Amino acid sequence: MPHLNEKTVAFLGLGLISGSLAGALRASGWRGELLGWGPRQPSLERGKALGLIDRYSLDLESVVAEADMIVVGAPPQATVELLPEVIALARSSGEPIVTDLASIKSVIVDAVQPAYNKFVPGHPIAGSEHSGVDASVSTLFAGREVILTPTAESDTDAVQSVQAVWELTGARVTLMPADDHDAALAASSHVPHMMAYALTAMLGDHALAPMKHGGGALRDMTRIAASDPVMWRDIALTNREAILEAMDAVAVEHERLRRLIAEADGDAMQQLFDRCRVIRRAHDDVLNPLLKRSESES
Amino acid sequence: MPHLNEKTVAFLGLGLISGSLAGALRASGWRGELLGWGPRQPSLERGKALGLIDRYSLDLESVVAEADMIVVGAPPQATVELLPEVIALARSSGEPIVTDLASIKSVIVDAVQPAYNKFVPGHPIAGSEHSGVDASVSTLFAGREVILTPTAESDTDAVQSVQAVWELTGARVTLMPADDHDAALAASSHVPHMMAYALTAMLGDHALAPMKHGGGALRDMTRIAASDPVMWRDIALTNREAILEAMDAVAVEHERLRRLIAEADGDAMQQLFDRCRVIRRAHDDVLNPLLKRSESES
Repeated sequence: MPHLNEKTVAFLGLGLISGSLAGALRASGWRGELLGWGPRQPSLERGKALGLIDRYSLDLESVVAEADMIVVGAPPQATVELLPEVIALARSSGEPIVTDLASIKSVIVDAVQPAYNKFVPGHPIAGSEHSGVDASVSTLFAGREVILTPTAESDTDAVQSVQAVWELTGARVTLMPADDHDAALAASSHVPHMMAYALTAMLGDHALAPMKHGGGALRDMTRIAASDPVMWRDIALTNREAILEAMDAVAVEHERLRRLIAEADGDAMQQLFDRCRVIRRAHDDVLNPLLKRSESES
Repeated sequence: MPHLNEKTVAFLGLGLISGSLAGALRASGWRGELLGWGPRQPSLERGKALGLIDRYSLDLESVVAEADMIVVGAPPQATVELLPEVIALARSSGEPIVTDLASIKSVIVDAVQPAYNKFVPGHPIAGSEHSGVDASVSTLFAGREVILTPTAESDTDAVQSVQAVWELTGARVTLMPADDHDAALAASSHVPHMMAYALTAMLGDHALAPMKHGGGALRDMTRIAASDPVMWRDIALTNREAILEAMDAVAVEHERLRRLIAEADGDAMQQLFDRCRVIRRAHDDVLNPLLKRSESES
């Protein structure tokens, strides 16, 4: 059994997140081989040119057979479709550890039936409105959270290995049930994206072209509306129930605030805004884990 | 008539925006005196200690009498209340130019009756979730837009002087009617703030405490929920109609997107997300006027 950082890791699909993970492992002094496989040869070629992977193959079976650990780095729907094939190949070769990066977890867990005890579902809470392997940044995970959602069947050693790999990138790892992950992330990430889309669509249709007059507030409130459309379509499709629930919860707050404004209830507004300031400031550290950004515009 | 940068400028109220303007004028090599007046002596004392103003007084009448240009730097409601008194004093002294910094403009214009032709309503589209004179940054306006909303009565020389002052800070100046300003800003700034409040309130009440799991998306989507509660109460109260209209427009988009998700209409979602990406990217330059920020997390 090789030491962790001597293992061969295969990335199935090379994009922003998987490319950044490969880069972070490189930066940590990883000694094992980093392999690539994917549907798009140019991304793999680029990943090799950038030094993120050592080599790549277009033959899935041989890549799975060589790997000690497999990272499925595909959009959610593609991950759901690819996983059964990967795990069938894994069962019939050396039983490598398999993990994934998808932003939703319940459908991923459901896709692996019967359970494969070396499968450790994962989700790094890091990303960008940019996509593709060229947007990879080896420091993407530093200070960020990675959530793993092992099931009752998950092998403890496999979970610990995946956790150890993520900790090499500077991330902190949290374990939780897949359902809790999906409900929490619907509220903390998926619905904020839907809100950015709703805001951007409204502004795009507005007669006065208000986006021209945007400052730092609008920069921040619409940044993620430029995120990868396919990935966010997949997330919306695969975490539907939890997203709808959180969208309704935010619509209730929107309507409540609308009523305070319509009624010109300044005291209740100030109370609400005060409370929001307290909530936000209590999370400054988790939301800005590394740098004091010059957040000086709004 | 002194050259522009030899004029005496008085700041009525010293906070983030007025302090940053004073700092930017200093940095531009302003030669005239910069005076302060305000209800809170500690802010004035601090502004002097920071080198933003040369001296201050607690006597409004004498400050107005000394000034060639007066900048009212108060929250919207306080600006509405203070302006009539300031303009009465201005009429009875040397008729200095008066401008303001409030984020809403129609109620400001309405507050100055009868019209004073040396009054030039203004709004720099720059700010921060931090407040107070200590948060002042002399580069706050660099590359940002400043909107002036002169009326039919406004003196051309006065408008040009205020425009020239703002251009010294690195801002670009746009002129438009106050009503258009209020409608555009409701959509581009005020409603985004209301959305950040609605999202933060929803998250604060959520059983799973999802904000703990927030990444860069949530950081950006809630940053402005920590903004000054009094200022945002005032903006909501004084630009009520335009804000309600834009809130309703965004609620329509929210509901439309909710329906696409409920119906699992992936094609329509992807089309919408694609369109939003195009809209956002078309405004990258105006929203990020200066620096290529490392917007690498979400």
